[in-house]
This record gives sequence, structure tokens and C-alpha cells, in this order.
Amino acid sequence: MLFSSTTNSAVSRLRHRGRFCSAVASAVSSAKSEPLKFERIREFRKKFKIVDIKAEPDDGLNKLGETVVVRGWVRTLRVQSNVTFIEVNDGSCLSNMQCVMSYDTEGYDQVENGVISTGASVWIQGTIVASQGSKQKVELKVDKLVTIGKSDTSFPIQKKRVSREFLRTKAHLRPRTNTFGAVSRVRNALAFATHKFFQENGFIWLSSPIITASDCEGAGEQFCVTTLLPNSGESAESPVSAIPTTKDGLIDWSRKMPSVNSQFLVCGRLNTTAMRMSDDFFGKPAFLTVSGQLNAETYATALSDVYTFGPTFRAENSNTSRHLAEFWMIEPELAFADLEDDMACATAYLQYVVQHILENCKEDMDFFNTWIEKGIINRLRDVVEKNFVQLTYTEAVELLRNSKRTFEFPVTWGCDLQSEHERYITEEAFVLYEYQEIKAFYMRQNDDGKTVAAMDMLVPRVGELIGGSQREERLPYLEQRLDDLKLNKESYWWYLDLRRYGSVPHAGFGLGFERLVQFATGLDNIRDAIPFPRAPGSAEF
Amino acid sequence: MLFSSTTNSAVSRLRHRGRFCSAVASAVSSAKSEPLKFERIREFRKKFKIVDIKAEPDDGLNKLGETVVVRGWVRTLRVQSNVTFIEVNDGSCLSNMQCVMSYDTEGYDQVENGVISTGASVWIQGTIVASQGSKQKVELKVDKLVTIGKSDTSFPIQKKRVSREFLRTKAHLRPRTNTFGAVSRVRNALAFATHKFFQENGFIWLSSPIITASDCEGAGEQFCVTTLLPNSGESAESPVSAIPTTKDGLIDWSRKMPSVNSQFLVCGRLNTTAMRMSDDFFGKPAFLTVSGQLNAETYATALSDVYTFGPTFRAENSNTSRHLAEFWMIEPELAFADLEDDMACATAYLQYVVQHILENCKEDMDFFNTWIEKGIINRLRDVVEKNFVQLTYTEAVELLRNSKRTFEFPVTWGCDLQSEHERYITEEAFVLYEYQEIKAFYMRQNDDGKTVAAMDMLVPRVGELIGGSQREERLPYLEQRLDDLKLNKESYWWYLDLRRYGSVPHAGFGLGFERLVQFATGLDNIRDAIPFPRAPGSAEF
Repeated sequence: MLFSSTTNSAVSRLRHRGRFCSAVASAVSSAKSEPLKFERIREFRKKFKIVDIKAEPDDGLNKLGETVVVRGWVRTLRVQSNVTFIEVNDGSCLSNMQCVMSYDTEGYDQVENGVISTGASVWIQGTIVASQGSKQKVELKVDKLVTIGKSDTSFPIQKKRVSREFLRTKAHLRPRTNTFGAVSRVRNALAFATHKFFQENGFIWLSSPIITASDCEGAGEQFCVTTLLPNSGESAESPVSAIPTTKDGLIDWSRKMPSVNSQFLVCGRLNTTAMRMSDDFFGKPAFLTVSGQLNAETYATALSDVYTFGPTFRAENSNTSRHLAEFWMIEPELAFADLEDDMACATAYLQYVVQHILENCKEDMDFFNTWIEKGIINRLRDVVEKNFVQLTYTEAVELLRNSKRTFEFPVTWGCDLQSEHERYITEEAFVLYEYQEIKAFYMRQNDDGKTVAAMDMLVPRVGELIGGSQREERLPYLEQRLDDLKLNKESYWWYLDLRRYGSVPHAGFGLGFERLVQFATGLDNIRDAIPFPRAPGSAEF
Repeated sequence: MLFSSTTNSAVSRLRHRGRFCSAVASAVSSAKSEPLKFERIREFRKKFKIVDIKAEPDDGLNKLGETVVVRGWVRTLRVQSNVTFIEVNDGSCLSNMQCVMSYDTEGYDQVENGVISTGASVWIQGTIVASQGSKQKVELKVDKLVTIGKSDTSFPIQKKRVSREFLRTKAHLRPRTNTFGAVSRVRNALAFATHKFFQENGFIWLSSPIITASDCEGAGEQFCVTTLLPNSGESAESPVSAIPTTKDGLIDWSRKMPSVNSQFLVCGRLNTTAMRMSDDFFGKPAFLTVSGQLNAETYATALSDVYTFGPTFRAENSNTSRHLAEFWMIEPELAFADLEDDMACATAYLQYVVQHILENCKEDMDFFNTWIEKGIINRLRDVVEKNFVQLTYTEAVELLRNSKRTFEFPVTWGCDLQSEHERYITEEAFVLYEYQEIKAFYMRQNDDGKTVAAMDMLVPRVGELIGGSQREERLPYLEQRLDDLKLNKESYWWYLDLRRYGSVPHAGFGLGFERLVQFATGLDNIRDAIPFPRAPGSAEF
């Protein structure tokens, strides 16, 4: 494992490679009379995968007669009187490769022995032939079958459909299902399209910090990060008395402690250089970030346009299908830009990434359209093709009052819009919704002195997908806001500096990546939109 | 801010856009007699930046006569008798745009008033003309100058060179320097090239979890993540007595506590739904991840080839120029692959990303070559063009003993290789170093029963850049290793499952992204390779 060790003893065999630097060659060969034997590093080549057949025009019919090797996992086995079908999937696409064997095929004994079962891994060499089945145009006529790894009969994902609730308890195996394989590929495509969009438009990716000692956000509960508590799951016996304390009984984040009362587990070798901190690691309370926005602003006011794409956290005890404790966020920040630029960027971004998956994930999107949310492809096409509607609060209230729908929370001008209202609005249209109540301290005040330049993008089924604003670039206004909200100006010194030295109008937005995945796949629970969801009581795997 | 609120009241102005969905149109217009005024969302267009001139063939000479608007920050101002030069940078490239004014240029009074100074932000419209200076081929003849934001005279980054140590205390302003602007762009290019390489080779990006309750790694000290301690920097007064305790005085991670003794700060509005957890958030000790490898293995054994690219953490008290508490790691995992495939992939990856920056970051690389590490471009060209040398431990010892160099730690066969030894070897050559001592539990045992299939890639100046191995795919061997190391097999149930159900040979490696940035830029301190470094006592910004 990287960084686990910089000093190593080793016994090993000799191996070398083609050409290499003469300094090494002479030094090594001078110690030996006979010349060294060189062995080349294997050339790295893109692996053959099932998608290389299935993504071909005409479903691979142009590959008839080719010999290929398929490596993957058995989805189903059907033994008929004179022919056996093995469906193999390698995760490169939704489609399995149908492999056809007869009793005299090399390796057929593994079928007879029961070694081949759902979940087993196989190596199959064969020839691409036209398929007589209706489900696929080509199949693999097997020349040779080799079992790589058997699957125990307890394999929990058998052919019968299993619920997504159940699969959440098998997060390590669920990517082997159709649904989660497709989610993984679409999530991957959305992530790459995100990078492509911003890179093509001259944005620079920025890694905003995960651990932060500043609480500049106030957007929600934060997780504390500490080395005062035990730092190994194996050494969970942690006396409270070991926590350094002031004489008032408060946690002392920075006191030097003479004695160290903690064990640490190092696997495989003793780590003699690592020391238990005698005070807390950062010398003050530190937390997991809730947003990279303020950090992104520092870089936007130097590099013009930047974006973050990284994990963020909320310690809110929301055990719902809409909330995660750990989720990935995309936060672009544009310098020399106002709210209109921000909305334009958000719209163009969303259209770009949706277009990307419609073009590049056709098979997976058809699957979602059939099995997860009927009509999702049309809904996404609308996103790409139609202009976005931009509604104000006043218009939204009007729309709701004219809807003749009965809401749990009645709608009057001045009321808070509830989820049911947002849902109604977004059932009807894609809405870029500009509202302007005084909200977070960093949002730019409008000239009326009461409202701010902020916007939300609400989309069908998911609700708020994007929230953004123009930032307050005027130092006196910003300081006043901090005072009004009784926030500590000293802790914002660096954020205020951006307004002292060459301040510029700037704007940005945040998008929760898992909500985008939900929006693009139709999944109703956000825990299915991330590989290993974190929620109250749940940090397994 | 995203997710900070789903219910909002708002007062706002009315605005609409071109075409929009008919459902909304009819509902809204039925409430009004006059037709609504529509306002289109501004089209999102790639912004003009200085790089659009400077990256042109012949340094922009083909743009002579064009009128452009430059938006950026003043680097220097030189007032001469009849002409004034303002150097403006917008972060899109290293080069400034030299803007030339005379006393009758519109806005020249801002020069006379002293409003224009280093650090100020400006909007400058002008015409591209040939430059008479030797430093650039074109310059901007200013038609109009507008100051956007003044720069206080205390601006800490004046023209004179400032040390990188000093700039670490100004992490929010340092991207406005040549060095950190260049680092930001090269870091960005390396990140995008990383995604491109893996995407082009059929790998799927996977977000491995940041918070984890499993300590499956043992590679180092971990940070504890908790809601038992106060969760706002503003409410740091935290009585130790509020921590739930067992009757033995140990921290009770899962006990329900009837009373809640904590405040939480919510900025701008009261968060009535957020509740202080009465037990710890995850119900057991949770930590920041040290590696996404084990998670990546679960996806590789379903999707064939995957990679992670995300933050990882070490709580080691290493206050050195080589260590960060928070750093980004790239961890590919290849199914149906052995150590040779792994080495081939690591080599191809490194060559790809280095080639990418040599081609796409020429100006920045020239800067590093001149100011940070002379000869770095040749060193990187070697990486791309030469084959890698593959040394075993035995060969390395031989090489060192024949070096005639005096080392602090003498070299004998069987000794641990120290940093000085690694440095000597990598001074001479790029070394893919295969060593095979028994190390982490997950590494595959070789047939000799003593050694494992592991490799490190050592590179000049940085040392270990990549560490990888083939993973133990055989269940009995893996269980034996866990037993030998006295690790708790129950906590690895899901990892072992991968070997129960269709296990396959697989391999992967880890690369510390900041070390790659160091390698590619010549920076000697890793804290300069990440925007906001985290180290003992340091979590500012």
C-alpha cells in the first residue's frame, strides 16, 4: 500500500527489461561477469471486453467469425438436452455475452460437475456467431471454458429479482446486478462529462480541503475530526479520562499531554515513526467540510474560473431517502460574472452532461426507462432540447394558486414553498427559479437592500438540484452581514481579504452529484446513487 | 448554498425567458390578462481569456487588429514619461497581457489617482497590436480602462519575490503568483489526464467512501469522525462530561442519551430539523479512510476495471516536507490481472499523464524548468520516451554496493533500503522496483510461501510514487494471513465474500496525487502541491 513504508527488506528474483539506462546497466553488469537477462514489462493494452462486441454497429454482427476471450461472471446457466447456455457479464455493459456449449466442448465437465453456477468467474474462448435467439444478434460458440473462481451456493444474488433494500446490505456485491452495474456506468459517465464540460470551457479543477478548522458555512451540522479519541477500530476501548481537559472540565484541544495512553495498530510491521499526538492533531477543533465554495472563491479570484468536485458532509440526523451524510458536490465559481452568467452556466452544464449520457449510455438508459422510471429518456431529452423556464417566487405562487390542486400547506403570497409545491411546479416544467430572500451571508445584496441574488434549479422528481448565487464582493456590505449575523469577522479574515485586494463580481453554484445521478437514472432512494452510502448508523463496508 | 434549505419565502421581481413549457405558460397567463414579458437566460459562452491570445500560433500575431476585453488582476504598473504599461494576468496562463496607455486614454485618471496598483482588478478594452518589447510579440493598446476592485496598499504579494514559506501563510492569495498559478494549472492538467487515461482504457471511476467504520487497512494512524464532540467551531466550549460513558469510564459509542447538551450554530436561519445525535452518528467508532483499495476491489470484481480518485488521510504526526494529513490518491484496480499487468498499467499511466502536461502546459513547464528545477523537462521527457528499468531487491543491493558512494546506512544484502539508497537509485534511472517481502495482508503470496507479488515505482527526487500489488484472491490463504496478523476476520466478511463468489486474480496500485504534482513541477515541499495543505497544527483556510 502506498506510503505504508519507505524502508523495506526483500528477497526477490531477478528480472529486467528491454533497453534501460546505461548507468544502471554498467553498474549492475560490472558486478557480474555474464550479461544480465532482460525481460520486458508487458505492454499495457486496453482489455477486450463484452462492450467491444455489443457496442458495435448492428450489435456485433460485423465481428462474425472472430475468436475472442471473454472474462466475466456467470449470470445464468441453462442446460438443455443438447446445448447449454451460459450468460456471462463483465460489467463493461449491461448485456451479457450468451455463450453456447455442447457436451463435447472443452471444459464441459465443469458444467456437469456443478462448478459453473451463478456468480462464478470464468474464462471462455470462443467464436462470434450469429445467434438464433431473439434477445441478441450474436453469441459466442465456446471453444474452451475455464472456471476461474467458483461461487458458493450461498451467493445472495441469484436469478430471481432482489429488492434494492436488500441489496443495500450487500453493497459489495450489488454492482454485479443489472441495476447497479448500470448506475455505476452512468454515474461514471456523468462524472467524466462534468470534467469535460468545465475543462472545455476553461475552468480549472480545484481540490477544496476536506478537513477544515473554519466554520464559515453554518449550513448544517458538521462532523468533528480528532485524534483525541481512539484511532483504530480495533482499539475501540477508549477511556474518557484520556481526553485532555481544562480545569473547567472542557475539552482542551491544544494542551500538551506528557503521557500517551493509546494503542495503535499497524498491520504487517511496526510503525515506529508514527506517534500518538499529545494534543489534538490540529491544535483546535476541526471538522469535515460542508462546502468548498469559500475556498473556490479564493482560486476564482486568481484564476478566473474554477470548479471543485469532491466529497462534502452533513452530520444531520436525517434518515431519509433524500439525504446522505457523505456526498459528492460540484461547485463551479466564475469570476467577472453575475447571477445571469451563473444561471446560464448551470443550465448549459446540466444540458451537457445529460446529453452526454443520452449519447454514451444508450443501453443503460433504456434499462432505466423500462425498469426504473418509465419515460425518463423523454424527460431527459426535454432537459437538453427545451429552454428552461425561469420563475420568480411571485410567479410560482400564482402558478400554484391556479393549479386547482389541494395542497397540505395552503398557498398564499408570503408563505414558504414546501416540497409538495416544488414537486407540483417541477412536475409541469423544468424551472430555473430565482428567489431572493436574505439568506447566507455571502450572497450579494440587491439594490432594494432586502433581497439577494440567488437562484435554485428545481427539477422533476428530485426537487432542488442546483443552488447558486452571486457573491457579495463589496467589503462593507459583507462585513455588515457578518455583524448582523453575529459571526466572528476575525475567523473570516482570508475571505474578507478577497474583497480588500482586487475584488471582482463573481458567482457560482453547487450541485449534489448523487441528486444528479438520481435525476439521470430515476432512482428514488439516494442511497442507491452512491457506491457506499453513509447515513445515521450506517458506515459499513 | 445547496441543501441548506428546501423551504423559502421570497419577494422577487418577475422575469421570464424565450420559449417555455406550455403548462406553465397557460397556468400563469390565465391569472393575468396581459401577456407575460419574457426574458431569455443569457447564453453561456466560453469566456475570452488571455490564453486565447497567448496560446495562438506565433504568440497571437495572427490576432493583430482585433478588439478584445481583458479582465484580470494588475501584476505591475510602470509609468513612463509618455506611456504607461499595465501588466494584467487572469490566471488562464502564465503570461500577462501587457496593456499600453497614454495620458489621453479613457480611464487614465485612475492611473494618476493611484487607484491602479498591484493586485487591483481591472476591465480593459483594447486592440491587439505588435509589441516593441522583447518579452512578448503582441500587446494591448488600451481604448478604455475600468477599475473593478482596488487593492489595499497592504497587499502582501508585491512585485518583489516572496518565499514559498511566506506564501503558505497566504494560501488564499498565493494562486495569484506565477508559481502557484502554474502549479494550479499543471495540477488541473494532471487530474484531467488521469481521468482521460482511465476512461479511454475502459475503467470506471468509483467514489470510495471517506468515512469508514472498518479499519481494514492498518497502514497508519486514522482520524476519528464523531458527533460526540462539539460540531461547530463557534461552540468550541465542550464539556467532557457530555460525552456518553460506560460504567467502566470508556466512551460509549452507541448508548442512547436522554438529554442533549450541545448547541449548534446555523447561519442565517434556524435549522429546526437538525437534531443533535443522542448517540454517536454511526453508532460505533468511525474514521477517515486511509485508502479506497478494498472498496475498489469490490467494484473491480463486478465491473472488471475501476479507479478511485479522491481524498485519503493520515493522522501521523509527520511535520515534514513529504507528508500531508490529507492528500488525494488515485487507486486503479484491474480484474483478471496479475502483477505484470499492474506494472504495465502503472508505467503506461505515468507516461500518459506526463506526456499530457508536456504537450498542454508548455509555458508553465518552461517556467518550472527555469525557476524551480533546472532540467525537469528533460527528466520528464525521459519518463515518456525511455523504457522503465525493473530492479529487484538483489539487483538494487548490488547496484548500491558498486556505486562507490558512502552511505550513512551501509548496504549489505538483507538490509532495509533507506531513503538515501532509494535516492541514489532513482538519481540514476527510473526504476520499477519489484520487491516481495511479506507485507500487507491483502498482497498475494508467491509460490515460495514467503514473498508477495508487490511492486513500488521509485522516481527521481520524489522516491516512491506508486505502490501496488497483486491481491490475494484465494480464500484459504487470505484467511490464514488474517489469522497470522491477529486481525478480526468478522470485520472483513464482505472482503472475504469477494473470494467466496467468483474470485478472480486482480491487481492494482496507489499513487499519491500530490507526489505526482511534485514530480511534475519540481516543487520540493509537498505543501505547495495542494491548494490548502493539512498538517499537524495546520487546518487554516
